[in-house]
Amino acid sequence: MAENKIPYKIYLEESELPTAWYNLRADMKNKPAPLLNPATHQPMGFEDLRPVFCDELVKQELDDTTPYFDIPGEIIDFYKMYRPSPLVHAEFLEKALGTPAKIYYKFEGNNTSGSHKLNSAIAQAYYAKKQGLKGVTTETGAGQWGTALSMACSFFDLDCKVYMVKVSYEQKPFRREVMRVYGASVTPSPSETTAIGRKILEAHPGTSGSLGCAISEAVEVATGLEGYRYVLGSVLNQVLLHQSIIGLETKAACDKYGIKPDIIIGCAGGGSNLGGLISPFMGEKVRGEADYRFIAVEPASCPSFTRGKFAYDYCDTGMVCPLAKMYTLGSNFIPSANHAGGLRYHGMSSVLSQLYADGLMEARAVEQTSVFQAAELFARVEGTLPAPESSHAIRAAIDEALKCKETGEEKTILFGLTGTGYFDMTAYQKYNDGVMTDYIPTDEELEASFAQLPKMD
Amino acid sequence: MAENKIPYKIYLEESELPTAWYNLRADMKNKPAPLLNPATHQPMGFEDLRPVFCDELVKQELDDTTPYFDIPGEIIDFYKMYRPSPLVHAEFLEKALGTPAKIYYKFEGNNTSGSHKLNSAIAQAYYAKKQGLKGVTTETGAGQWGTALSMACSFFDLDCKVYMVKVSYEQKPFRREVMRVYGASVTPSPSETTAIGRKILEAHPGTSGSLGCAISEAVEVATGLEGYRYVLGSVLNQVLLHQSIIGLETKAACDKYGIKPDIIIGCAGGGSNLGGLISPFMGEKVRGEADYRFIAVEPASCPSFTRGKFAYDYCDTGMVCPLAKMYTLGSNFIPSANHAGGLRYHGMSSVLSQLYADGLMEARAVEQTSVFQAAELFARVEGTLPAPESSHAIRAAIDEALKCKETGEEKTILFGLTGTGYFDMTAYQKYNDGVMTDYIPTDEELEASFAQLPKMD
Repeated sequence: MAENKIPYKIYLEESELPTAWYNLRADMKNKPAPLLNPATHQPMGFEDLRPVFCDELVKQELDDTTPYFDIPGEIIDFYKMYRPSPLVHAEFLEKALGTPAKIYYKFEGNNTSGSHKLNSAIAQAYYAKKQGLKGVTTETGAGQWGTALSMACSFFDLDCKVYMVKVSYEQKPFRREVMRVYGASVTPSPSETTAIGRKILEAHPGTSGSLGCAISEAVEVATGLEGYRYVLGSVLNQVLLHQSIIGLETKAACDKYGIKPDIIIGCAGGGSNLGGLISPFMGEKVRGEADYRFIAVEPASCPSFTRGKFAYDYCDTGMVCPLAKMYTLGSNFIPSANHAGGLRYHGMSSVLSQLYADGLMEARAVEQTSVFQAAELFARVEGTLPAPESSHAIRAAIDEALKCKETGEEKTILFGLTGTGYFDMTAYQKYNDGVMTDYIPTDEELEASFAQLPKMD
Repeated sequence: MAENKIPYKIYLEESELPTAWYNLRADMKNKPAPLLNPATHQPMGFEDLRPVFCDELVKQELDDTTPYFDIPGEIIDFYKMYRPSPLVHAEFLEKALGTPAKIYYKFEGNNTSGSHKLNSAIAQAYYAKKQGLKGVTTETGAGQWGTALSMACSFFDLDCKVYMVKVSYEQKPFRREVMRVYGASVTPSPSETTAIGRKILEAHPGTSGSLGCAISEAVEVATGLEGYRYVLGSVLNQVLLHQSIIGLETKAACDKYGIKPDIIIGCAGGGSNLGGLISPFMGEKVRGEADYRFIAVEPASCPSFTRGKFAYDYCDTGMVCPLAKMYTLGSNFIPSANHAGGLRYHGMSSVLSQLYADGLMEARAVEQTSVFQAAELFARVEGTLPAPESSHAIRAAIDEALKCKETGEEKTILFGLTGTGYFDMTAYQKYNDGVMTDYIPTDEELEASFAQLPKMD
C-alpha cells in the first residue's frame, strides 16, 4: 500500500492496533543471560522471583521462547485512552535542516504521565489486580514512572506506594502532586517507614537520597506487606515486552504507508523505550528478513553502552536485587550532579546488552548541551517541547540527517520521542540561562566504579 | 453515516479538516455591539484600530457579514502539527457516573501551549508576518496565551515581547521558561521598560502587578515601536473567528458518526474557547436549522454572565482600551486571591454576551472546590489531568449526566476540554492538601464595582 499519501501524523485505526505484545527474546539466537541470585550466583526461577514480582510478570520475565503474548482486553481498553500514539513525519524539521533525509518520530508523550512508561505501568497494575493483590510499591526519581504507575493503579483501584528520591520530592513537587491526584502515597526516600530507610538516615543524616535506596525501601515494603508486590519501570524483560507496543504500532504504520526506515534511533537509560521501539524491526533483522541500523543514544555523563563493561552486576545500588548480565558502569556509579536529564541508570536491559554485544546495534554518547540545543530546535520547528531524555534521540537523528545533507543520501530516519519536557523546565532554564555544562567521567572514575563489580566464578 | 462505529477517539482525516473559519456574527440576527472610542464614545473603525492591531485582523474584527474566511495555507500547515484535536467519547466517565447519558469532549490540550490558545496565536502571528511587521507584544497572566504566542512567533520568525503579571512571573517560572525556549522575551509587569510601568511602580512600589497593567504596558510598547502591533488571546471577535476551528472540527466529527449533541458546554473566561466550540452549532440554531442547549460555565468567584451587567465597559483595568458592550463585573473587578484557576477576566466576548442577552445560551457559576473534585474524577477515569479552567466544563457536564441518571434520559452531552493542568499543580496541591476554599463575591462588592462602569449617553 505504498501508494497511500503519507499524512503529517499517522494515527492507526482502532482495528489496526496490535492485540499481542512481541517477545523479541524468542527470536534472538543468543538469548539474554538469566538473572542470578546475588548470594548463590544461581539462575533465579519462578519460585525465587514470585515473592517480589506478580506471578504472571515473573512468567513473562523468564519466558524467552514464546514470541507473542496476547494483550488482555482490559489493557487494550486502557491503551485506547492514549493510544495509538502518532507516527509523525517531521517535515518541519527536515525543512529546517535542509536535509534530503526523511525523518519520522513515534511520539509517546501525549498522556498525563508524559511518557511511554504508561505502556508497562498499566500491564503491571493489571496483573497485580488479577492476582488479587491490594497494591504495589515502586521507586521513582524524576517521577515519570511513578506518575504512570499511579495512573494505572488508580484505574484498577490498587493501592500505590511510591518511594521518591528525596531530592526530587523536594525539587520537583509538581510530579509528586500529579501522583497524589491519582491517589498514590508518595514518600520521600530515605524515610522512617522502612528498616533500610531508618538505617540509612542514621548513617547519613540529611542525605538527599538515591534511586538505589528508594528501590531498597520499595522492595522491603512490598515483601513485608500482605498482598503487595514490587514493580519496576525499565530494564526488565517484562517491561520491554510491554513496550513492544511502541514498535508494533510504528511497524504497522510504516507498513501501511510503505515507509522503510534505514536507521532507527532511541534514547537509552534502562532500555524500556529503545527496546520497545526496535523490537519488531530487530525481530526481522535477527530472523534475516530485513536489515536496519539501530542506534542507542545515551548521555556522555552516564555511558553504559559506550564505556561500560558487559558483565554481571547488581541491579541496585544497595546490592540486594538479582544480578543481571548487562553493560554496566558499576552499581555504585552516580552521574555527575550537573547532569540535568534522566537516563541515569548505571546498567542496561539484558536484552539490549546482548544485542549490542552481538553487534546487532550501535551506540553513541552525546553531551547534554548539544542535546538541549537539539531539543530547542525541535521544539521550535515541530511544536512539541521534548523531554531531555527523548532529546538524546533527537540529537542523533539530527546528526544523521545532517550527514545525509552532506552526502545527498535520502535515508529514512525513524526515532522515538518518548515524552514531553513540561516537568523538566528547571533543566531548560539552565540551558536558557546559558549556565548548563557538560561532564564526561574520567577513565579513573569508571575504573574505580568497575572495581565494585561482583566477582563471578 | 450514523451506522459508523464510533471509536473512543475520533481523529478526522486531513482531507476532512475545515479549510475556512466560520464567522458566527454573519448569521446572528442581533449583531454584537461595536467597540467604542473610550473618549468620544463613537464606534471605532478600521483607521482607529490599525495603529494597535494588524490590518487584516482589524478587518476580521469589524466584519459581521462575511460568513466564512478561508484559512491561509501557512496556518493550515501549522494546524496539522497539533490538529485535528480528538473528539473523545468519555465512556470511562459515563461508566464511573453510571449515567445513561452519552458524553463527548473535544480535547484541545495536546500541544505544548497546553490549550486551545494556539489556534488564534498562529493566525495572529501569520497576519503580523504577512504585514511585514517585526514583532508583536502581548500580556499574559498564568502564561497559556503567552506560551501559545511565543510558539507561533517562533514559527514565523517574529519577535515576541510578553508582559507577564509579576506575581505569575515569579510563582510560575516554568511557563516563563517555555516561552523563553521559543525565543520570546518575557518581562515581569509592571516594569521599568514602559512609561506606564514606571508610573505604576512609583505609585505602588512592590506591587505584584495585574493583567490590566500588563495590557497597558504591552499596548504602549506596540504602539511606540516601529513595526510592532499588539495581540490579544480572547474576548475579541477575531479570536472567536479563529477558534471556530474547534467547533467546525467537532461538528464534522459529529456529523461523520451521527452524533447529535443535546447539550453543549464550555468554560467561559473571555469566551475564546466557548465561542469557538459552539460557533457552527449556534449558527444552526440562529438559522433555525437545529436546536441545542448551550451552557457557559464560569467561576462563582468571577461570575460575569450570571451576576454581571450587560453594559459598555472598558476592556482593561487601565481604562485606555476601547469600550465593549458585554456582560461585565466592572473593569476594576479582581477575583478573590483564593481563586486558583484562570477565567479571571471581568468581562466577556461581545458575541457571547449578545447571544446570552438574546436567550440563546444559558450560563451557570460553579465553585472551585467542586470544580477540582470533578477534575480529580476526570483525571482518574479518563486519564488526562485537566486544566482548572477546563474543569469548569467538566463539572457542568458531570452535573448534567447525573441529572440524566435520575431521569433515565439518554441525552448526548458535548463539552470542551480546553487544556491540561501540568502547569497548574500548585492549585492541585491546595486541593490535594484539603486547604482549597471557595469565595463568592458579595452583592455589595459587585455594586461597588459596577459603580465604576463608564457613564454612557
